[in-house]
Amino acid sequence: DAHRQEAHARRDQPAPELFLVLDRIRSLHNVGSLFRTADGFGVQKLYLGGFTPAPPRPEITKTALGAEETVPFRSVEDTRVAVLELRSLGIPVFALEQTWDSRSIYDVEFPSAVGLVLGHEVEGVSDEVLQDVDGCVEIPMFGAKHSHNVTVSAGIALGEIRRQWSSRDGEPLADSNPPGMKEDSP
Amino acid sequence: DAHRQEAHARRDQPAPELFLVLDRIRSLHNVGSLFRTADGFGVQKLYLGGFTPAPPRPEITKTALGAEETVPFRSVEDTRVAVLELRSLGIPVFALEQTWDSRSIYDVEFPSAVGLVLGHEVEGVSDEVLQDVDGCVEIPMFGAKHSHNVTVSAGIALGEIRRQWSSRDGEPLADSNPPGMKEDSP
Repeated sequence: DAHRQEAHARRDQPAPELFLVLDRIRSLHNVGSLFRTADGFGVQKLYLGGFTPAPPRPEITKTALGAEETVPFRSVEDTRVAVLELRSLGIPVFALEQTWDSRSIYDVEFPSAVGLVLGHEVEGVSDEVLQDVDGCVEIPMFGAKHSHNVTVSAGIALGEIRRQWSSRDGEPLADSNPPGMKEDSP
Repeated sequence: DAHRQEAHARRDQPAPELFLVLDRIRSLHNVGSLFRTADGFGVQKLYLGGFTPAPPRPEITKTALGAEETVPFRSVEDTRVAVLELRSLGIPVFALEQTWDSRSIYDVEFPSAVGLVLGHEVEGVSDEVLQDVDGCVEIPMFGAKHSHNVTVSAGIALGEIRRQWSSRDGEPLADSNPPGMKEDSP
């Protein structure tokens, strides 16, 4: 029937692909959180660039809550290796970084396969990596401070990418009733 | 001229108002991060409900990075006091919680003044509070795990609220070149 045909057609579309590249994230706590966030958004692969620590580390597990077992990752000595690998596969790569040329994440139309680079907690994405990406995107800020925590930034940007994909496809964003949810309601 | 008239008309519109209510957040690290996130989104007031720790605490400052000085906050012994206060002011309050009745944050049209309740890291928003809110919203999940870290969740939801406001107003989301940004660009 029509419903089955539609489901079949959907399966034939190339799956959206999301890649996260960490450029010298120094905190084990943040790396663990980023694994959990990557899992929640269905990231295909997490690149750990430069001195970004890699699992297994108890401090990573503490905030990853096991997501370091479910998200494929790869350490690369130079973050640019990850960026160039993705671009060589035809996947556009954006750095989440405030530069004079950065565009708001809400003004960019994200392609259905995309890589996102997140940078060092204080220094941001390195200049060398910025030379190699397809563009820079930023999150509009409204307060006294000028940046979000790196994991929160990742969540905001990945959320916007998933929202755009979903609004284009007209598909439901995910299972509406995942297991483990609260049964009580207001 | 037309531009000045438009700017003037904008000033006469009521300012959008964003309120965050923390229902028994136990971790000092998370409370600090939530202050920083609240600042970044221009939250008017942060309510600290139940046993949620309040500044001044060195562990809060460590992740708030000073945002505990810029975001107005108020501790309430019972989280419901905050919810009912907001609702008595005509401000709809949503709980960010997975329930059988939760709607995706992408399917809800958020009003221009809104309160958002975030719950305990393990138990979520308490059943008593869920009885008192206007509705529940949730973030679509794509991975093996069934939730995001509470601060990441806050960022994703507040980002969507700000995006909706901006797309309705047709206004730029914020200053495009905040101070402190990187001058280098790809």
